[in-house]
Amino acid sequence: MTEPASRPRLRLFVGADLGPDAAVLLPREQAHYLGAVMRAEPGEAVLLFNGRDGEWRAIIRAIAKNGATLVAETRTRPQAPEPDLWLLAAPIKRERIDLVAEKAAELGVSALWPVFTRRTAMSRVNTDRLAAHMVEAAEQCERLSVPVLREPMPLERALGDWDARRRLLFLDETGGGMPIAAALSALADEAQGSVPPLAVLVGPEGGFAPEEQRMLAALPFVRPVSMGPRILRAETAAIAALAVAQALLGDGRERPRGACAKE
Amino acid sequence: MTEPASRPRLRLFVGADLGPDAAVLLPREQAHYLGAVMRAEPGEAVLLFNGRDGEWRAIIRAIAKNGATLVAETRTRPQAPEPDLWLLAAPIKRERIDLVAEKAAELGVSALWPVFTRRTAMSRVNTDRLAAHMVEAAEQCERLSVPVLREPMPLERALGDWDARRRLLFLDETGGGMPIAAALSALADEAQGSVPPLAVLVGPEGGFAPEEQRMLAALPFVRPVSMGPRILRAETAAIAALAVAQALLGDGRERPRGACAKE
Repeated sequence: MTEPASRPRLRLFVGADLGPDAAVLLPREQAHYLGAVMRAEPGEAVLLFNGRDGEWRAIIRAIAKNGATLVAETRTRPQAPEPDLWLLAAPIKRERIDLVAEKAAELGVSALWPVFTRRTAMSRVNTDRLAAHMVEAAEQCERLSVPVLREPMPLERALGDWDARRRLLFLDETGGGMPIAAALSALADEAQGSVPPLAVLVGPEGGFAPEEQRMLAALPFVRPVSMGPRILRAETAAIAALAVAQALLGDGRERPRGACAKE
Repeated sequence: MTEPASRPRLRLFVGADLGPDAAVLLPREQAHYLGAVMRAEPGEAVLLFNGRDGEWRAIIRAIAKNGATLVAETRTRPQAPEPDLWLLAAPIKRERIDLVAEKAAELGVSALWPVFTRRTAMSRVNTDRLAAHMVEAAEQCERLSVPVLREPMPLERALGDWDARRRLLFLDETGGGMPIAAALSALADEAQGSVPPLAVLVGPEGGFAPEEQRMLAALPFVRPVSMGPRILRAETAAIAALAVAQALLGDGRERPRGACAKE
């Protein structure tokens, strides 16, 4: 299926409700992007999504320095269920955690949760910057939502209040776990065909401390997994594990929208 | 298994043959890295590999500005077979193709082959820079080889002399292909349990031209595959496809070295 010639070139994530004739006010930053960066003008059509109401075609009514106004016209895609896949990641250096946030959004995670571990060298994480990367990636990859950025906290606290139905794939770089494909296949068998909520946990450069490994291995919802014989950087392990999880249990099993028209 | 306390902190890829008492001369650049950057001194042990003779523990004998001399002592790992997995990738912007080279080396590709397609915006590719990224990644991830960097050429020419036993997973962003996990599973069935040589082909931003898609779909060794419903950036698609291929048919099914000691 080729895109219709009138497909808007811009796609934006908004907070406002979307519906027929809904007015949408964009804040200063998005108005600047629309007007000054992308040179859009009143009358141009833009795609909008908010994670709740599907994707809507909207028309720019006005652009000023302080904001812009659009009016939603027609729904181009209904909101659809998405895989329930979290990524828990220890903060690492700026350019590498930014990469993780971008790629996690592209690979369809529903939440990114920065967790501090024993060997985490970073003492804080810039959540505004990570959120901006995820919004931009979501706008570009055509998903209908933006991953939730959960409040950064120590790993123990994150695990303390865990819903045990959500299985946690612990990327154990010491090799104590099952190969990831086998672990995912075992989870599918346990769940008898349905897909349980999942999470992937990746440590910092330097991996997990022995006491963390023991704590994790003792938790009933944790599945230690191995990514193979090479020592992957933290961001590579995170991206690779998400890709495999989506391909085997997530929406990697679906074809892209519009694909049926080619068959 | 914890690493012995004497495990060398440095690991280098060299061109020289490695064997008992083999003398290894490092060129100026590696000598600079050893001496000026890492502050190594004569007497320190270093791990060396060359892609042929396994991994060797060697002792630094002398470091000067123009070069350094080491002597190999004992073999720490034998050379072992590695997955035969190529990545054919259309050149994209510098920081993103560098990322592809680094991650492809970490994920264990045996060769990286830059191919120019109709919509490739870059007219050339800096192979020295890509090779340097792959060497550094191979040194860090503990593999025993560095991926071969094949001569950049137009896609048609690369496919013209193709060994049809090597299956080519064509990342078709229009969704014409099978989901990647299903395609890999079908390849394993065809090969009756053995793993055929594989390659992954990823296009530039903007994807493949319709005539390229038709050409590819008509080739008997090509398998069009889909990475799911989102539009992935070129580098994300490449990394994700390699991760899935290794997890399902490659060495992602093996446990890391030393893992058995934990069980």
